Amino acid sequence: MDLVVLSLLRAACGIFLVAAIGVLYPAPVKAQDDPLTGLDAMLDEAAPEEPLRVGVGVKITQITGVDQRAENYGVVARVRMKWKDEALAFDAEEVGRSIKTLSAKNFAEKARELGVNIPAATIENQQSRSFVKSATVSWFPDGTALYNVEVILTLQAPDFDFRRFPFDHQNFYFRIIGNAPTDFIQFEPLAEASGLGDTLGEEEWVITNYWTEVDEAEGISGFTSSRFSLGFSAHRHLFYYWARIFVPVILIIIIGWANLFLEEYRRRIDIASGNLLAFIAYNFTISGELPRLGYVTFIDSLMMAVFVISVASVVYNVALRRLSMAGMEERARAIDWHTTHWGYPVLFIGTILVLRQIFFVESTLIAVL
Amino acid sequence: MDLVVLSLLRAACGIFLVAAIGVLYPAPVKAQDDPLTGLDAMLDEAAPEEPLRVGVGVKITQITGVDQRAENYGVVARVRMKWKDEALAFDAEEVGRSIKTLSAKNFAEKARELGVNIPAATIENQQSRSFVKSATVSWFPDGTALYNVEVILTLQAPDFDFRRFPFDHQNFYFRIIGNAPTDFIQFEPLAEASGLGDTLGEEEWVITNYWTEVDEAEGISGFTSSRFSLGFSAHRHLFYYWARIFVPVILIIIIGWANLFLEEYRRRIDIASGNLLAFIAYNFTISGELPRLGYVTFIDSLMMAVFVISVASVVYNVALRRLSMAGMEERARAIDWHTTHWGYPVLFIGTILVLRQIFFVESTLIAVL
Amino acid sequence: MDLVVLSLLRAACGIFLVAAIGVLYPAPVKAQDDPLTGLDAMLDEAAPEEPLRVGVGVKITQITGVDQRAENYGVVARVRMKWKDEALAFDAEEVGRSIKTLSAKNFAEKARELGVNIPAATIENQQSRSFVKSATVSWFPDGTALYNVEVILTLQAPDFDFRRFPFDHQNFYFRIIGNAPTDFIQFEPLAEASGLGDTLGEEEWVITNYWTEVDEAEGISGFTSSRFSLGFSAHRHLFYYWARIFVPVILIIIIGWANLFLEEYRRRIDIASGNLLAFIAYNFTISGELPRLGYVTFIDSLMMAVFVISVASVVYNVALRRLSMAGMEERARAIDWHTTHWGYPVLFIGTILVLRQIFFVESTLIAVL
Amino acid sequence: MDLVVLSLLRAACGIFLVAAIGVLYPAPVKAQDDPLTGLDAMLDEAAPEEPLRVGVGVKITQITGVDQRAENYGVVARVRMKWKDEALAFDAEEVGRSIKTLSAKNFAEKARELGVNIPAATIENQQSRSFVKSATVSWFPDGTALYNVEVILTLQAPDFDFRRFPFDHQNFYFRIIGNAPTDFIQFEPLAEASGLGDTLGEEEWVITNYWTEVDEAEGISGFTSSRFSLGFSAHRHLFYYWARIFVPVILIIIIGWANLFLEEYRRRIDIASGNLLAFIAYNFTISGELPRLGYVTFIDSLMMAVFVISVASVVYNVALRRLSMAGMEERARAIDWHTTHWGYPVLFIGTILVLRQIFFVESTLIAVL
Amino acid sequence: MDLVVLSLLRAACGIFLVAAIGVLYPAPVKAQDDPLTGLDAMLDEAAPEEPLRVGVGVKITQITGVDQRAENYGVVARVRMKWKDEALAFDAEEVGRSIKTLSAKNFAEKARELGVNIPAATIENQQSRSFVKSATVSWFPDGTALYNVEVILTLQAPDFDFRRFPFDHQNFYFRIIGNAPTDFIQFEPLAEASGLGDTLGEEEWVITNYWTEVDEAEGISGFTSSRFSLGFSAHRHLFYYWARIFVPVILIIIIGWANLFLEEYRRRIDIASGNLLAFIAYNFTISGELPRLGYVTFIDSLMMAVFVISVASVVYNVALRRLSMAGMEERARAIDWHTTHWGYPVLFIGTILVLRQIFFVESTLIAVL
Repeated sequence: MDLVVLSLLRAACGIFLVAAIGVLYPAPVKAQDDPLTGLDAMLDEAAPEEPLRVGVGVKITQITGVDQRAENYGVVARVRMKWKDEALAFDAEEVGRSIKTLSAKNFAEKARELGVNIPAATIENQQSRSFVKSATVSWFPDGTALYNVEVILTLQAPDFDFRRFPFDHQNFYFRIIGNAPTDFIQFEPLAEASGLGDTLGEEEWVITNYWTEVDEAEGISGFTSSRFSLGFSAHRHLFYYWARIFVPVILIIIIGWANLFLEEYRRRIDIASGNLLAFIAYNFTISGELPRLGYVTFIDSLMMAVFVISVASVVYNVALRRLSMAGMEERARAIDWHTTHWGYPVLFIGTILVLRQIFFVESTLIAVL
Repeated sequence: MDLVVLSLLRAACGIFLVAAIGVLYPAPVKAQDDPLTGLDAMLDEAAPEEPLRVGVGVKITQITGVDQRAENYGVVARVRMKWKDEALAFDAEEVGRSIKTLSAKNFAEKARELGVNIPAATIENQQSRSFVKSATVSWFPDGTALYNVEVILTLQAPDFDFRRFPFDHQNFYFRIIGNAPTDFIQFEPLAEASGLGDTLGEEEWVITNYWTEVDEAEGISGFTSSRFSLGFSAHRHLFYYWARIFVPVILIIIIGWANLFLEEYRRRIDIASGNLLAFIAYNFTISGELPRLGYVTFIDSLMMAVFVISVASVVYNVALRRLSMAGMEERARAIDWHTTHWGYPVLFIGTILVLRQIFFVESTLIAVL
Repeated sequence: MDLVVLSLLRAACGIFLVAAIGVLYPAPVKAQDDPLTGLDAMLDEAAPEEPLRVGVGVKITQITGVDQRAENYGVVARVRMKWKDEALAFDAEEVGRSIKTLSAKNFAEKARELGVNIPAATIENQQSRSFVKSATVSWFPDGTALYNVEVILTLQAPDFDFRRFPFDHQNFYFRIIGNAPTDFIQFEPLAEASGLGDTLGEEEWVITNYWTEVDEAEGISGFTSSRFSLGFSAHRHLFYYWARIFVPVILIIIIGWANLFLEEYRRRIDIASGNLLAFIAYNFTISGELPRLGYVTFIDSLMMAVFVISVASVVYNVALRRLSMAGMEERARAIDWHTTHWGYPVLFIGTILVLRQIFFVESTLIAVL
Repeated sequence: MDLVVLSLLRAACGIFLVAAIGVLYPAPVKAQDDPLTGLDAMLDEAAPEEPLRVGVGVKITQITGVDQRAENYGVVARVRMKWKDEALAFDAEEVGRSIKTLSAKNFAEKARELGVNIPAATIENQQSRSFVKSATVSWFPDGTALYNVEVILTLQAPDFDFRRFPFDHQNFYFRIIGNAPTDFIQFEPLAEASGLGDTLGEEEWVITNYWTEVDEAEGISGFTSSRFSLGFSAHRHLFYYWARIFVPVILIIIIGWANLFLEEYRRRIDIASGNLLAFIAYNFTISGELPRLGYVTFIDSLMMAVFVISVASVVYNVALRRLSMAGMEERARAIDWHTTHWGYPVLFIGTILVLRQIFFVESTLIAVL
Repeated sequence: MDLVVLSLLRAACGIFLVAAIGVLYPAPVKAQDDPLTGLDAMLDEAAPEEPLRVGVGVKITQITGVDQRAENYGVVARVRMKWKDEALAFDAEEVGRSIKTLSAKNFAEKARELGVNIPAATIENQQSRSFVKSATVSWFPDGTALYNVEVILTLQAPDFDFRRFPFDHQNFYFRIIGNAPTDFIQFEPLAEASGLGDTLGEEEWVITNYWTEVDEAEGISGFTSSRFSLGFSAHRHLFYYWARIFVPVILIIIIGWANLFLEEYRRRIDIASGNLLAFIAYNFTISGELPRLGYVTFIDSLMMAVFVISVASVVYNVALRRLSMAGMEERARAIDWHTTHWGYPVLFIGTILVLRQIFFVESTLIAVL
């Protein structure tokens, strides 16, 4: 085991899990099709008989924020990696103790000197500079090694689907991918070391469940690497949206309806125009909540419907007024009776029911709405 | 005491209290239930006969800000750890002095060379990159060591309860947790080295008292570790909320009441509608103060009540107008006399009293309200 | 090959691709015209017989944000560089394996000791502090070396042309330039290692295609260096702009038109003035979207036209009112009939058609508009 | 002087002035009252016969910003420390030069090797990560050493008193505190190296004078340490506040007064209500300027007074209208004549005079107001 | 040349150009007047016979942003320093090549070992943490050395004069100052290596010309040091200001004028009051553009004039109405005819001409206005 070359767990200045792989578990690169030279044959020779099996666990202890416009979220997480390497074994009696511990940085240096391998990995969906609160490696007489790191970072959450916003359910992931291909390193979930803490400090979201996955994805080498994911599912507390958006909009609509009973067409036009401006303001408020999507959401449809009803309302009242100015006052009154007494509220309720059918059908959220 | 392996106080680039533990106080990991191998037996052997007792003190010298929406707060704090290790003892006469001092980084290097142990710990609720202003270790002939660090960082404050906002009392914590389990390291509070400074630079909160706690929590190793907490309790200066929210809202309500004396129903409808829009604006102002909670706060209830009264006011005046248009002018006037002369103010005051009963009963804040 | 001097891949604290070039590929500087001394002759001697050919590939895995006001965008990208250096060759049998891997930092140190060269490069349009997630070098028995780095950074996008905003197409680039002149290092694209990932996390833009380029530009040395670029082209999802800007503006215009049918000049003046203020508010909303340009965009022209029509509308109605006050009521009505029934809508539609002709003629976007 | 232990000026990653003190000037800690052990006796022995006298100067070259809400301000400052240590003396002729210079980091390393002491200090009110532009130590044949550092950082300014805002004078400090107690290190001001530069780049504040202080405060060791302070005093340019707040508010009040001459009570009620809303908007503008204080400021009182006058104005006009509706038109007119012709302006001017008396009496600012 | 002591180009973590000077070019400090000891005599002896001449060039390749409120701007810049030191000379034939290159950090280490000097300098107006993209030193057989660095940073721009805003011309500087006094280091501009790149990515400003300067200023040592400056001059693209501020304000004024033709005094008062509120809103918009200045700008004067005209307008119309109510209807009409037909526009145009005279006389901008 001489001349083994290792990359280090580069902890300096927040770099995370970059360990180099030596003899058995290198980080070869898929390069056969590029113009210079093919490397496939070389890589086939380099692969070990069996991949190193590395247990991975991720426990999220804090959620520092969810930025749904930028589609990312911040966490403080404890990552554990566990593997067994004969080269790390030692005689407990001779050494006088049955456990050895080093900071990750010092372990990497020591491993390099001794020619021991470290399974290298990267947090796949990391989106910002990270900060390592603590990073240590402990190992035992039988060669079992445990890498424990606590890290603060921001993770990409590209899977947001806002179609049912704010009644949406979203999945979040913390993904760790091996630097070396699947032939070299194979992840296995450490169920016990995975999960979410008790005091996440997240008020807006209700986390319903979490799970671990191991699959494969293209790694930094260009080849398929093993990938561990901690996923969790969450929906929103809805009180905010009822108190700040839905209730005020309903109140404005009720005021509009109440004014219909005053039977002055000019006044109604003013009210409907005013409502339209208020709804435009709400439209902007809502648009600030979400990224600039390429698809229509429930709440967009709702606001659009309210817009159209407000404009139709103006046109309707102008028409009534012209009718009554043209001497058909009686006729106008008759039409208006129906609008006032059931047309206006039925139109709004019908619109909401149609949108519910479109966006939430076969959904468990129908009850909530 | 040869061959002791140490992790370092990794100070480079702001990493804080990550010390590795050698022979006596390693950072073993709870790993017995995971699929690879059980480590319990190994860990039992590794524990020392008695845990290392480490005195911990935290003095907060500056509060750089409280972000209640993100549920965190920033501090500049002086942390002191004190422990005794025979291996650090020296002969003062021989050395020619009775104290030795090193920067934390150099001490960690020296300790590693000499095979001396350092009690490793992490700031549990740290939420952002930290910055170390100063970090030194001093030790004395009898082997007593003192670690002094001054650090700038942001701490999670996940325990905020905004139900009584802005009349709420909140607890804040600075928590330090050992990297090794309770069998290895046991914290004890250093009362004298703990507390809050005189010029915290925090204008919004009134800090009423502070305390230290030592309990146990799951550490980075997955096992139960000893945890030191400096807690402090605070409530808000209320002047801001009276001057910017309560007084203006009361003034708008008074203006609304004064207009009732003008006895024109149309005008009152305008006033009530205008009030509703003003209250919606205040609603947004208040919602920007707090995170998006899943529960109802006092101030939410208050705004909701004011909304409902405003809408009821519009409906009431429309009804009165229709009454008087239908020839029942006399009746409308009679009803209105009572509303104007005592109904309107009694409704508002009654609402506030009910909300006080719900949110502040058995509370020392009743007097304040 | 003794006494070779190397610069290192300075990875510490996020510095990226700064490798020094030794005997064959130095980073000389163009300095012949400055007052101290000419260096041209020296540089001519220093150039190798043939430049080192380095394959470069860039794969963007995340787009963290596009800030069109600051004209930059954030990415997470995997950069691969591939070259062949006899000095790195080793005997696989003797060493016992057919691949060697080191972290970039350790490779640079090792290369310096062994006197091996590293092709130095800089990300030309990098605009912010970068963060290296992972950086390794692998090499093979024949001396082929592969540098793999995953980096988080912000890139300048100075080529934005907002003339057709929000119907604009934009090009974005990731540019890598050699530190040494073209005589020393020559880039070649690695097609397979270039491109864009599947989950970029960018909601606003639709990326239509990407390409790689190699050209030459002035490098840090002042001489012409080889430059690799990954470019991609994108246009916007338009739903946001229709829902938040165009539809509300159209609705306000329709309300203005509906009010013309009420045939009161005073009221129309109010409506036209109100519209003007609403359009000024929209004007500010739009101006917050874009940097402060030195040229006129489509949307600026549109808002300007709407302004002018609103002001003309006020003047028109004042004139009509004066006409009717001066006893020419009949004449005013006649003129107004045409304005109301076809003049107002024709004016708006005509304006839009003219602007389309000016900004989008010979454009594939005409259909979209 | 052998076996001296030194902490280093830890410059890496922006840490500033953390030097450890060896034999003569250690950083002992006040720990006598804590439960583990008393250290007082040990510390008494450790103190040198006379404290090291260190000259300190601070020159602020740039003010990058004043954030009065967060109560801090950013500076670029040049700090100089000067002291004399026989151990640094050298023979100029033998060495061949009469000055030696090293970067602070290298000096600390060299000092550690040679057993030379460095006076350790911390910037007491530093509130953010700092950035060191340059840090060098020079020393001379007689052992005089000079430490020069230029640093970018944010400093706490907890002494803000906004009672007279925006006519307030504020004091700002740059405080340096020794790590070791007063028995070990004693600061002395270097007048010439202290002050403020010519191009601070601060537009809002007028700096009137500066001074240096040396006092004592609790240091990081828990004992009393020597503290150097550069203080400076500043007041605001008032043009902004006149142009953006006072003049517009006065104009709104004048418009309100002018409308009193129109002698319509309904109209006046509208004006007074509108004024109230405008003043509420200004109230929010002003509240955004200041932190959430626990005390009343001049400008708060002013806005409150204006609020009360506006509400009283509404009630007054409602009363007048009811009077005139009740047939006492004549009486109402008589009362109103006085209000219109002198009551309204006298009320505003009187209010301002009273507030001036309360907030600015015995103050040099009376003239300004 | 033995025992030369050098400070290093401290590149770690973004520190820039801090090199220490040894025998010939030390960084002595002006300390003669402080209470401890005078150093003048010592420094006189230390100065070399002739200062080291260092060529300096700065090329700005990107402008990342101009923040005129904070009075700073961000750049990506390539800095080159060129000097000649016999101690760096080598025999090209013996070494086997005619150029040597090292990273700045490694060069500093090597120089320290070999006893070679490095000219130390600091970016004088740097205001934020910097990030070094690339930093190398190359040297040639004759001892000519070239230091090339590409750096991202924020620079103070304290010379902004906003009196003519937005028609202002501003100067920006990139200043490099030697750490050692003028007797030791003397800068000379490298014209060819200085200037501004082609794709600066700055949309708002038009850069008209640039120049290099060498002068003297107080350095970090407290003595006069040589200072190199790259300056450039710029003015603004004015389209934004016309489209967002001037044109809307002119439109509001035109609407106000048009309403004068309606000949109702009450209505005019409403319009003038409404205009005043709109102008107050614009006033806030403009104030957000600039820092809080201590002097009056063109645009402030303009807004003030518009304020005064609006208030005068209200008073004028109240007076007219009282005139006509007092039976002098005829007189009021006569006065009003002149105001409406030429007074109002002449007042505005006259105001603008007077302000132009005050702010832009003898200015090339008159044509633009």
